[in-house]
Amino acid sequence: MTAHPTVPATMCEDLTQSVRRLIEAVIMTDVDEATIHTVRSLVDGASELLEGTRVSGDSFGLRHTADDAPAVWGNVVIGVRNAMAPPLVIERDNNGRVTTECRLGPGYEGPPGHVHGGICALILDHVLGATAHRPGLPAVTATLTIRYRRPTRLGRLRAEGWVHREEGAKTFATGHIADDDGITVEAEGVFIRIDPERKR
Amino acid sequence: MTAHPTVPATMCEDLTQSVRRLIEAVIMTDVDEATIHTVRSLVDGASELLEGTRVSGDSFGLRHTADDAPAVWGNVVIGVRNAMAPPLVIERDNNGRVTTECRLGPGYEGPPGHVHGGICALILDHVLGATAHRPGLPAVTATLTIRYRRPTRLGRLRAEGWVHREEGAKTFATGHIADDDGITVEAEGVFIRIDPERKR
Repeated sequence: MTAHPTVPATMCEDLTQSVRRLIEAVIMTDVDEATIHTVRSLVDGASELLEGTRVSGDSFGLRHTADDAPAVWGNVVIGVRNAMAPPLVIERDNNGRVTTECRLGPGYEGPPGHVHGGICALILDHVLGATAHRPGLPAVTATLTIRYRRPTRLGRLRAEGWVHREEGAKTFATGHIADDDGITVEAEGVFIRIDPERKR
Repeated sequence: MTAHPTVPATMCEDLTQSVRRLIEAVIMTDVDEATIHTVRSLVDGASELLEGTRVSGDSFGLRHTADDAPAVWGNVVIGVRNAMAPPLVIERDNNGRVTTECRLGPGYEGPPGHVHGGICALILDHVLGATAHRPGLPAVTATLTIRYRRPTRLGRLRAEGWVHREEGAKTFATGHIADDDGITVEAEGVFIRIDPERKR
């Protein structure tokens, strides 16, 4: 789980970005059957090459960069190797306020033209949870409450989270998602910091 | 938005399944730089072919099958063209109880070896929301509350949702996610049926 990767992170990021483009292209394409067939052969060929050497186990988990900093590469929200992740780039200011900006395309759709309500929940869970993380002490969600004020259009979004109060290992966080016209979804959550060495 | 697709749905499903395999292969691979480079060329070539003919607009939205039934293909939870969707296959019994079973692999990871808490929220939002849907009247989420009882391991999962009570267009639903050892996450939500012709 702590093996050093052989390939530079930026190269993985470029490949992941190419796969994101492919995901969107599959959703939006209107090509004919013969082209779909050719594309599928290319994609299967790519998978076969990648599967030639595979990390052991059933999850990518936490790895370390060359300078031994932890790097979460498989994570579905921030993982640089995970094409399902937008990915969110989380920024934290000196007051512990967490913000992120992203553009969500057709892959995140629920109601036509709008972000799936559950994707808003996924983003808010991660952003609010990030207010509780401390180095070496990740936080897990205890409860999360989401209020949908209006539909969130696909496109450019901003999410924010901040600490409302703390009690020992518990963090009570608040936050929202906003588009260019203002707040669309609000959230409150309780997050608990765990010691990974003790719990797993 | 109601154009009939030219390619059979099963063919799209097969291609989407190939892209799901690719997403996981990118996360789990340990190949060298030269192979990553080759793979990226294959993937970009595939995207270029698909982008040759593209549906108009910025979302796939709702399309219709050859027999004019609505088919939600781009949806991030159930869309057969969306490689980010597990996809969930939603089953509804005569009492309105909604169930789904799926296997979540490394692409849905949050804490190492476990499903991201926000992915549990995404699944529960969709499953509880499905109890409120009526033909031609999709429901949107008003509020969603999630309680995490314990971490959800990656692997085989079952989610269930049922109606607690109804008030006009409002449905109060309850549900949970369970693994082989029992319930891991519980949820309650309020969903509101909307008339798509009136609201958008």
